[in-house]
Amino acid sequence: MLTKEELEKHWTQASEIYLNHVSIDCVVFGFHEGQMKVLMLKSNNEKAWYLPGGFVRNEEPIDDAANRILKERTGIDKIFLRQFHVFGDPDRTKFHKETYKDMLPKEHNFFAQRFISIGYYALVDFMNVTPTPDAFSEICTWRDLNDLPEFQLDHEHIFRTALDTLRLQLNYQPIGYNLMPREFTMPELQKLYETILDKKLDRRNFQRRILGFGILNKLEQTRKGGAHKAPYLYSFNLQNYQAALREGLQGGW
Amino acid sequence: MLTKEELEKHWTQASEIYLNHVSIDCVVFGFHEGQMKVLMLKSNNEKAWYLPGGFVRNEEPIDDAANRILKERTGIDKIFLRQFHVFGDPDRTKFHKETYKDMLPKEHNFFAQRFISIGYYALVDFMNVTPTPDAFSEICTWRDLNDLPEFQLDHEHIFRTALDTLRLQLNYQPIGYNLMPREFTMPELQKLYETILDKKLDRRNFQRRILGFGILNKLEQTRKGGAHKAPYLYSFNLQNYQAALREGLQGGW
Repeated sequence: MLTKEELEKHWTQASEIYLNHVSIDCVVFGFHEGQMKVLMLKSNNEKAWYLPGGFVRNEEPIDDAANRILKERTGIDKIFLRQFHVFGDPDRTKFHKETYKDMLPKEHNFFAQRFISIGYYALVDFMNVTPTPDAFSEICTWRDLNDLPEFQLDHEHIFRTALDTLRLQLNYQPIGYNLMPREFTMPELQKLYETILDKKLDRRNFQRRILGFGILNKLEQTRKGGAHKAPYLYSFNLQNYQAALREGLQGGW
Repeated sequence: MLTKEELEKHWTQASEIYLNHVSIDCVVFGFHEGQMKVLMLKSNNEKAWYLPGGFVRNEEPIDDAANRILKERTGIDKIFLRQFHVFGDPDRTKFHKETYKDMLPKEHNFFAQRFISIGYYALVDFMNVTPTPDAFSEICTWRDLNDLPEFQLDHEHIFRTALDTLRLQLNYQPIGYNLMPREFTMPELQKLYETILDKKLDRRNFQRRILGFGILNKLEQTRKGGAHKAPYLYSFNLQNYQAALREGLQGGW
């Protein structure tokens, strides 16, 4: 845990290093075998939960900043973060303005200003990454979507907007290439969709629709070992999957 | 045209009124009867063409700022502007940094700093709006997409990204409610798509696909007065249109 002096030093230096008024917050969703989680930090000082966020260096491209921030704050590197929305309500950081306003002289009080935050999101397999807290955080961990803590600032709104974006994306873009094993059954893929949407889907409708998009190859082999009739295995047809990422699941006009 | 003194006064005051480092640029597409245009300004001072843009007031929500900026700079009001991307390359405003760096003392030189720009876009009927230049502009006008001037800064990149966003949107969202007359023929609707995509579409495929989305009502009447067989008229089915805006043209899962 940082001392008051260390924190003061940090925020005084921050105004030299970072752009005023611009922040980045990252919503990293984790999926594995029917479980859906989101990456969160518990702050040292306030004992409140945040999405991992930070600031943009004076000469740094914003996409680089998003990746650096996620790495510094959670130890997680090399994942594809995508911009999804800018959060620009003037009162969104009111809590910080009030909490930290007397900590430093106004001209150096980087933390107590208005921030417009650029939201980035990603969806990863949470078994492939190990979150590590930074010096400002007591805990950095995956929180189950069915058991979320209270969020600080407008971070619940940022999280919900990212989740809505991800769910809408299921309607027009393929998903799952980095989340499914190379070969998978139809029920396994259906489980991914059901988990993100948080609802049950009809088995036949799901199969008909997902096959209609042409993004799957049906393999010769079946999955061995179960008590029931062995289910067919599928893999993604990468060429069609990539085209659908660019043009949408129905193809272009 | 503003004098050097007036410009200096403006940029000195700007640092009191606006947030540092954050700007907004608007890409307003105009469509009418097979023509596609984009709203642009020609600057007084540099004789260069820009998208209409501006800055965020200290306590102003960013969506309000986008609408105020568009109104101040072009006279255009009450159109639905939608965020589409943030442009955060540190060199994107290099030209302004270099051109204006000696105009004012560094601490008041609002215009010569790095700006991260939030892009907003809209698609309107250009016959319904009359652009009016502000004090910084010599011309404010609709420029045909087939006859574009050279853009200043990264405004061509912002424009192209907005156009890509609009074209991609055609693959998964309905479009045209604010652009078509209340009753229209299938060739008229096809022309809208062809104009945005800048390519010819097959008549039968277009009709089959667009009808498949369930967003159109076929009317009893036909269009009278032509030399050929009178074509059927259609109108949008607003309930299905709104649902498709929320869930995508194929519906949700």
